[in-house]
Amino acid sequence: MCKFQFFYVLLLFQWEQSVSRLGAVALHFLSPHPAHVTAAPLTLASSAAGSFGPAGTMSVVKLEECRERIRTELDNVVDFWLKYSHDTVHGGFFTCIGRDGKVYDELKYVWLQGRQVWMYCRLYRTMDRFRKPEILEAAIAGGAFLRKFARVSSGGSGPWKCAFCLTRDGKAVKIQRTIFSECFYIMAMDELSRVTGDKDMQLEAEQMMQQLIYWVRKDSSGLGRPQLSGDVPTNSMAVPMMLLCLVQQLSEGRGQEVVQKYRELGSWCVQEILQHIQRDGTAILENVSLEGAELPGCQGRLQNPGHALEAGWFLLQFSAEQGDEDLQRTAIDKFVELPYQYGWDKEHGGLFYFLDVDGHCPTQLEWSMKLWWPHCEALIAFLMAYSQTKRPELLERFSQVYEYIFGHFPDAKSGEWFGYLTQEGKVALDFKGGPFKGFFHVPRCLYMCERILDDLLTNKD
Amino acid sequence: MCKFQFFYVLLLFQWEQSVSRLGAVALHFLSPHPAHVTAAPLTLASSAAGSFGPAGTMSVVKLEECRERIRTELDNVVDFWLKYSHDTVHGGFFTCIGRDGKVYDELKYVWLQGRQVWMYCRLYRTMDRFRKPEILEAAIAGGAFLRKFARVSSGGSGPWKCAFCLTRDGKAVKIQRTIFSECFYIMAMDELSRVTGDKDMQLEAEQMMQQLIYWVRKDSSGLGRPQLSGDVPTNSMAVPMMLLCLVQQLSEGRGQEVVQKYRELGSWCVQEILQHIQRDGTAILENVSLEGAELPGCQGRLQNPGHALEAGWFLLQFSAEQGDEDLQRTAIDKFVELPYQYGWDKEHGGLFYFLDVDGHCPTQLEWSMKLWWPHCEALIAFLMAYSQTKRPELLERFSQVYEYIFGHFPDAKSGEWFGYLTQEGKVALDFKGGPFKGFFHVPRCLYMCERILDDLLTNKD
Repeated sequence: MCKFQFFYVLLLFQWEQSVSRLGAVALHFLSPHPAHVTAAPLTLASSAAGSFGPAGTMSVVKLEECRERIRTELDNVVDFWLKYSHDTVHGGFFTCIGRDGKVYDELKYVWLQGRQVWMYCRLYRTMDRFRKPEILEAAIAGGAFLRKFARVSSGGSGPWKCAFCLTRDGKAVKIQRTIFSECFYIMAMDELSRVTGDKDMQLEAEQMMQQLIYWVRKDSSGLGRPQLSGDVPTNSMAVPMMLLCLVQQLSEGRGQEVVQKYRELGSWCVQEILQHIQRDGTAILENVSLEGAELPGCQGRLQNPGHALEAGWFLLQFSAEQGDEDLQRTAIDKFVELPYQYGWDKEHGGLFYFLDVDGHCPTQLEWSMKLWWPHCEALIAFLMAYSQTKRPELLERFSQVYEYIFGHFPDAKSGEWFGYLTQEGKVALDFKGGPFKGFFHVPRCLYMCERILDDLLTNKD
Repeated sequence: MCKFQFFYVLLLFQWEQSVSRLGAVALHFLSPHPAHVTAAPLTLASSAAGSFGPAGTMSVVKLEECRERIRTELDNVVDFWLKYSHDTVHGGFFTCIGRDGKVYDELKYVWLQGRQVWMYCRLYRTMDRFRKPEILEAAIAGGAFLRKFARVSSGGSGPWKCAFCLTRDGKAVKIQRTIFSECFYIMAMDELSRVTGDKDMQLEAEQMMQQLIYWVRKDSSGLGRPQLSGDVPTNSMAVPMMLLCLVQQLSEGRGQEVVQKYRELGSWCVQEILQHIQRDGTAILENVSLEGAELPGCQGRLQNPGHALEAGWFLLQFSAEQGDEDLQRTAIDKFVELPYQYGWDKEHGGLFYFLDVDGHCPTQLEWSMKLWWPHCEALIAFLMAYSQTKRPELLERFSQVYEYIFGHFPDAKSGEWFGYLTQEGKVALDFKGGPFKGFFHVPRCLYMCERILDDLLTNKD
């Protein structure tokens, strides 16, 4: 395990900042060929490090050890899902996978089907060591299963509504009255079309995107929720976040026509996300009114630090693309540092799942648990923020999250990560895959961090 | 706190069983005037106890101390809700009440509105010390709020669908696609009609009951769930349990016409509940097929010990009414003793919330938490089972649950009970009322236990 103290690295970097210029590396990790980026190499010069003697040398060595740990972990996690999750009979992926890899439920959750297709394709397309036939075949099989079964035409909700959950052989079990199954369907289709070159698939993703935009910005009645007088329309952070993610997914490397098509939507998503900065900039609230005002009650006071941090790195990517320094500052101040400040458990370490901005007890029974995914998002957010600014305190936070993650989540015995810990850090649920945990947050985090570290270490001279 | 060792009582009772007849006391606590009951007095004879000297005497004294603690606790809990929960502006009850009694959210959850009306009326009608104007007025005001706002005519789900949640001034926020809001609406209306003599209200309860029966036994499409090919119809234990509870509520003390009307439904509910005995009688499973077979996956393997125990005392009441000794035996063996055996946490004490019959980790994040309500149900179930059979091991279990409850749930500082503990017994959520915790399980448990203890102690000679 990579257990070095980042303190030495920080000391080195702080000193370096006084003797050499540490320019911002704008990292656009959703794209292998970023545009609109003003990148400067990271000057982690060995000559400067030499002043520290062994400590300076160690800092680079240790960052490399850290990258090595992340790379190995990514390999192991990919192997775990390749080995245990493929349904070779009916297609698609098992997602309910126990600690030791055994399938404990054959239901197939559509969010997780879409995410797994996306992740396989992204690895295949952008990392040479994953360009393997078995990964491509699995992605294609998963995509075929989704196209065949995920869209449910019955129910009167329009032809594009996707199920939330399917039986092993593809029968719809449940439909959510939200947009998220469709979001992950789009992510899967777009990324798969990039690998296979299938234009129809790309078109299908864009058509479903149009449906989503209509539901979100024009008329949500097609989602199937009854219109109730007390059910005030809400700007829930998940929605603009997901749409922003899809804008970046669909635009990446496409021609100007597509980029133009989503430009306004991207800006709209950013504005919607920024509306969640509340209480004079001292809090990120999960739900606000459509006008950007605080809502009454628990719903209005809810904080979800992991979500804010995820929004943080989405905004950082967008700001790098656009060259928008103001947005970069806001993203780091409000969506990276702030959620850490209120979301980190000072007593036991780790990020709380939910909090109430006024300190009331949240009503979610799991509020104090430590979930894997907020920590994944925090790791990406701090490393990306550091890579763009070289502010040492951001690397310090990265280090803190890194230590918590590798001290708690990986399962040394059977591989992959536990997903759900008690407040004190004890494993509370020991499965590797469940209705909301699949092949996504862990590998995406490791993938993103490996790439950022590659860039930092490659450009250090 | 009543901390005596039940061991002495058990010793006494075991000895008594060999020297005197301890007949079954059939307790019908939903009715103040039970019918079809073959009751024999409990012979907790002081002459027999005399053989034990101080121990025998103490056992009775301690049972009385226990009843005193329960009685005092009930008074305090009633005072808490009278003081903090009434909305004198808009009517109805606040249900989101913090540790110290402050309202932290003004939303009004319909389950809890109905339950509070029911509980106030039941206390007012059957316990002299609660026959107070303020309790009657609160119940009437709560009933008026429910009748005015809970039924939602829009949404295309028929005129009787009730909302799940309302704004403070009664606007519908959310409708569940289940029958439970309606169930608690019926309980409230029927019990209130008994107190006020309002025949229209009674009729309204019966009409809504007909609608429920139609949804459950004929056609559930009016509940608003889309018909999906993978969504297999299920016998979920909550449904026949609630209907059996309503049969008892609506029939109690009514004329033969009403009793006849629900007789077949009552038997049907019992049969549906008994279908949940699975695995050759070694497990109660929460969901089974309509034919009574085990379902695949997590849903099929799910166990909810608190629910099974609640079903247990519902069945015990029904068996006492019907004089059905076979059912009594089954209820105690399978729905009282068995759920305790698999549901009790041998390491930390208390009942788990959810379990998987094959020992997989449940996917519910809160599976290992200790909630107040399963313990309330267990306390009633063991005391009622003991009162009907005088089997000492049932009193021993009652004692064990009693000790756990009074050692963990009551809040010595601000009154009422905490609802949600970690597996280890630490308070995890400190509010007194929330979306699912209101004025119901705690006072119903204390009320039922006080009445059973009254009966046991009154008939001891």
